[in-house]
Amino acid sequence: MVKKEKYNVAVAGATGAVGRKMLEILAERNFPIANLKVLASAKSVGQALSFNGCDVRVEELCENSFEGVDIALFSAGADVSRQFAPLAVKFGCIVIDNSSAFRMEPDIPLIVPDVNPEAIGAKPGIIANPNCSTIQMVVALKPIHDNYEIKRVVVSTYQSVSGSGQKAIDELQNQTENLLAGGQPESNVYPHQIAFNCLPHIDKFLENGYTKEEMKMVHETRKILGDSSILVSPTTVRVPVFYCHSESVNVETVKPINARDVKQLLSAVEGIKVFDNPESNEYPLAIDCADKDEVFVGRVRDDISCENAINFWVVSDNLRKGAALNAVQIAEYLTTRRDPDKH
Amino acid sequence: MVKKEKYNVAVAGATGAVGRKMLEILAERNFPIANLKVLASAKSVGQALSFNGCDVRVEELCENSFEGVDIALFSAGADVSRQFAPLAVKFGCIVIDNSSAFRMEPDIPLIVPDVNPEAIGAKPGIIANPNCSTIQMVVALKPIHDNYEIKRVVVSTYQSVSGSGQKAIDELQNQTENLLAGGQPESNVYPHQIAFNCLPHIDKFLENGYTKEEMKMVHETRKILGDSSILVSPTTVRVPVFYCHSESVNVETVKPINARDVKQLLSAVEGIKVFDNPESNEYPLAIDCADKDEVFVGRVRDDISCENAINFWVVSDNLRKGAALNAVQIAEYLTTRRDPDKH
Repeated sequence: MVKKEKYNVAVAGATGAVGRKMLEILAERNFPIANLKVLASAKSVGQALSFNGCDVRVEELCENSFEGVDIALFSAGADVSRQFAPLAVKFGCIVIDNSSAFRMEPDIPLIVPDVNPEAIGAKPGIIANPNCSTIQMVVALKPIHDNYEIKRVVVSTYQSVSGSGQKAIDELQNQTENLLAGGQPESNVYPHQIAFNCLPHIDKFLENGYTKEEMKMVHETRKILGDSSILVSPTTVRVPVFYCHSESVNVETVKPINARDVKQLLSAVEGIKVFDNPESNEYPLAIDCADKDEVFVGRVRDDISCENAINFWVVSDNLRKGAALNAVQIAEYLTTRRDPDKH
Repeated sequence: MVKKEKYNVAVAGATGAVGRKMLEILAERNFPIANLKVLASAKSVGQALSFNGCDVRVEELCENSFEGVDIALFSAGADVSRQFAPLAVKFGCIVIDNSSAFRMEPDIPLIVPDVNPEAIGAKPGIIANPNCSTIQMVVALKPIHDNYEIKRVVVSTYQSVSGSGQKAIDELQNQTENLLAGGQPESNVYPHQIAFNCLPHIDKFLENGYTKEEMKMVHETRKILGDSSILVSPTTVRVPVFYCHSESVNVETVKPINARDVKQLLSAVEGIKVFDNPESNEYPLAIDCADKDEVFVGRVRDDISCENAINFWVVSDNLRKGAALNAVQIAEYLTTRRDPDKH
């Protein structure tokens, strides 16, 4: 990408929960924007979205939307990405795509800027943003893998409804109100009631009994950490929480590992906050991590069931670090990195 | 215990969430009761509790409460059990204790009737009822251990607030109402807000970084399955659910294991219901398992990260099978077993 003082930026899927968060984060981080386009489907055209205190009108996402655009952030679902991202690239635009459409394509970099920015090649076209549940886990796993070589991860997630968009946030709220008033809850977004319940089911079931969400955590972790030997067994569960995903992670390593050293190691990493003082009831909580940029780690302890293993609890805002912030951080990396052609 | 047609039964801690459930289950299962005493602390004396459609007056739990009582079910906390259970035994009463007071005493049997009834000796005094999160897990683990020899279990729990009693049920309800009305939630039972949040903290923290609840799952599992070589690493988490605990369990075995056989194996076990049809979105859910006696298992699948391992999801009513029902089932076993002296 040619370096400029300011960039023409488009956000596709701007009216969704993640799209709005992208606009919010671009503004709050003063991303150098020359011209901003907010794009969505025909039904949202004309709607005004707030950016830096100004109203920006939604335009319809179409074939020519990306003419003159330098960077496009996509968060409108895999189908939209598949249709429009290649068109954007034809106009010379770099697409940072939050959908699952291209993540596992061998030629498409899958990037967490804190973990593997170098995987963005010299001339990127589409750059994939990983799945939210993967991002927060790999941020914590990266220093562990570098120092102790990860062998196997067993992870159970506690994922908030905001990961399924605004409609799911409304569904949790409506169901909860209904139930407290003695009524019958209606389920539209999820196959079952989510209020006061846990659903061990995120995304479609696959032939091996895992869900797509679970297998994303397997494949994306390997791709981002650049090591296909890492074994991962996830169970992904939706819980009645509005914002932030929590994860219970068990990691077995090749080299001897201990909780004390891992706490020290993670404490020194930018983008991670270790919040781990059991004696004063301090550990990361979903309600405390909303609107925070970092990945929060706590309950780090030696696994009493395995020699070279630890357990930890990791929480992060799935709409920010798990989606919008990570995408903006990729854009920031592109605009600030040394030109890879001139190494 | 001398066999009778009907037994004098006492319930100590009868006004609590588990105590009430004990009364309900004794009635619904037609336990052969001659005389029923409901006991609680002085402040509840005179209160009427419902049993089989009749009112029973609460009497104060005191030193002589157990004169003439054959079987006492205790659920009034560890301190009360430590004080009164030995006194009851002196009167020749068999105590089935739901607290943690005696569970790990080498001479006290720790019983899940579906798993290890034989561990009740010929002349039991106190019989301990395991922790709720342990019971539902060991019911599912028992046939797996018998057939495949369990090596290691990694478990993350999703525990409902009813495990902390009626005050916690009220706290979840009040906090939820408050938050939906735009107010500030008040936390008294838990150290942090439980509504729309997950707390990776149940019971006290111990020196090794695990909580007491987590270590209960380690020690009790070994004691109940009668195998101290079984390795367990639990992470216990409180979730904003009223009734039933859910658990994400990963089991590694010594012998080759596969999900298909395990589903068949568990389906044949009384007390277990396998509810596992991902293609029609069927898996056990907390909201469906309330007031059910069984332990529900689903999402059984081969672990892709380990050769001899499977994952499953297990849900059960923590007040019933996890506490009151299990205690009553122990009492039933005592009244129906062949006299062990006459083997």
